Amino acid sequence: MNLTPECIPCFLRQAVAVSRLVGADGAKQERVVKRILALLSEVPFDQTPPQVATVIHSAIREELGMADPYREAKERSNILALGLCPQLRELITGSSDPFATAVRLAIAGNIIDFGQGCGVDGAKVRAAIAWALEQPLPPDVLEPFRSAVGQAESILYLGDNAGEVVFDRLLIELLPRGKVTFAVRGGPILNDATTVDAEVAGIHELAAIVDNGSNAPGTILLWCSPRFQERFHRADLIIAKGQGNYETLSAVNAPIHFLLEVKCPVIANHLGCDQGTLVLRRAGSRA
Amino acid sequence: MNLTPECIPCFLRQAVAVSRLVGADGAKQERVVKRILALLSEVPFDQTPPQVATVIHSAIREELGMADPYREAKERSNILALGLCPQLRELITGSSDPFATAVRLAIAGNIIDFGQGCGVDGAKVRAAIAWALEQPLPPDVLEPFRSAVGQAESILYLGDNAGEVVFDRLLIELLPRGKVTFAVRGGPILNDATTVDAEVAGIHELAAIVDNGSNAPGTILLWCSPRFQERFHRADLIIAKGQGNYETLSAVNAPIHFLLEVKCPVIANHLGCDQGTLVLRRAGSRA
Repeated sequence: MNLTPECIPCFLRQAVAVSRLVGADGAKQERVVKRILALLSEVPFDQTPPQVATVIHSAIREELGMADPYREAKERSNILALGLCPQLRELITGSSDPFATAVRLAIAGNIIDFGQGCGVDGAKVRAAIAWALEQPLPPDVLEPFRSAVGQAESILYLGDNAGEVVFDRLLIELLPRGKVTFAVRGGPILNDATTVDAEVAGIHELAAIVDNGSNAPGTILLWCSPRFQERFHRADLIIAKGQGNYETLSAVNAPIHFLLEVKCPVIANHLGCDQGTLVLRRAGSRA
Repeated sequence: MNLTPECIPCFLRQAVAVSRLVGADGAKQERVVKRILALLSEVPFDQTPPQVATVIHSAIREELGMADPYREAKERSNILALGLCPQLRELITGSSDPFATAVRLAIAGNIIDFGQGCGVDGAKVRAAIAWALEQPLPPDVLEPFRSAVGQAESILYLGDNAGEVVFDRLLIELLPRGKVTFAVRGGPILNDATTVDAEVAGIHELAAIVDNGSNAPGTILLWCSPRFQERFHRADLIIAKGQGNYETLSAVNAPIHFLLEVKCPVIANHLGCDQGTLVLRRAGSRA
């Protein structure tokens, strides 16, 4: 899906938020904002938001002189999620349908997204969990997903954010062993998970971890490594987490199931649902 | 008070929102956004937000080819507020302290502000009224205001938005007759009230209406007409409604009482209070 005018203020909010997050002074904040304004004024609108975000955040990192300004915040997200892990696992094992509960929680974990703000808010995450457990997951979307998981020989799980990977781990525990590859971004961007975050979540104990060779906050196949592209095309089930993967893969013809929380009006409009909705959606299908 | 980096995404949100409000197509929305991006990339940060907003909205009007893109929305605001007027007047006359209630309601009316979005939301306005009636107005801010009103020979009331002017009218009904001048913007900007809005609210029946000679969404004295500047300096009480008037007058040495609802984090920070607070504040005093 392409950039919309609404994405522009959102990129600028991210630039301001991360500058503040790392404690940049007023002059540096102004420099970051001006650089992003100049970049955005030249940007073609026929790109996906993550394509533009890649360029924007590269400039932000350069202006801030930091390779990974979100690193500490990502660590806090991981710690928060790891702290919730025993309770989440109990919710899953104690439920009448552990797979459905793990799917709901994996979607709830997508609330940990710094595209909208820059905090790790424990209360917000716990509220998202409680809300997720109450949301309907209609059988006509859950059952095809359950059956695709049962039949798949090769599952590619596209992670999204730090912290959220702990929630992903709990779902991966219920996926067929030896068949799952977990993909992370090839380099730091926003609070997106990289290899270290997947390892902190212990995903390497359950699945092979690969990085996709690109630091876009999504999966832009043309920008990914040949090795990743080959895995992508070989997988008979792709589980894609989060808005960034949806924005970059919604038009790709592949056996993808998207799991995400809808966090912005642009995605809500594209998916035909309300902001805040927990989405499990097969590629190409409409609600 | 000066522009902050947070103001930048806010201006862009306004540009997108008004383009959608008037039904501009995708290409025109993109053109508007690009023009504003280019303008903002050159803007000095040592100006007040309304100074920058004046330039931004002039460019928006030019790109949209409309002298007053908010006109219809302002009319809807006026109609909404006029519909509430009988009920508001009852709240005032039935209260144990009509002046205090009218002050609260005048601040509540400041919720009708298109700087943050572009809707006229009746439910939101009614909620703001209910909330305003419950908020404390500490005697140490209310009583000096009451006494300034009682002693003033010449009151200059600086209006803010369409719709909100109806709430202002109800407060003006309780101010000493023959001493009040009601000032509006000299030309259309955002949903700020101009002469026609003040007249729709019936303010001309109670007070002289003057326009300030400037179409800034605030009161930038240097940009105002000599006639208005003279009135401003002659007034022994200035009642300044809304964020725009606060942003442009907070550093001016004059007998100003600000009445506003705090709608953005930048103002909240400057005033030392939370977003959503109803503020009655004498110039120069801190909470």
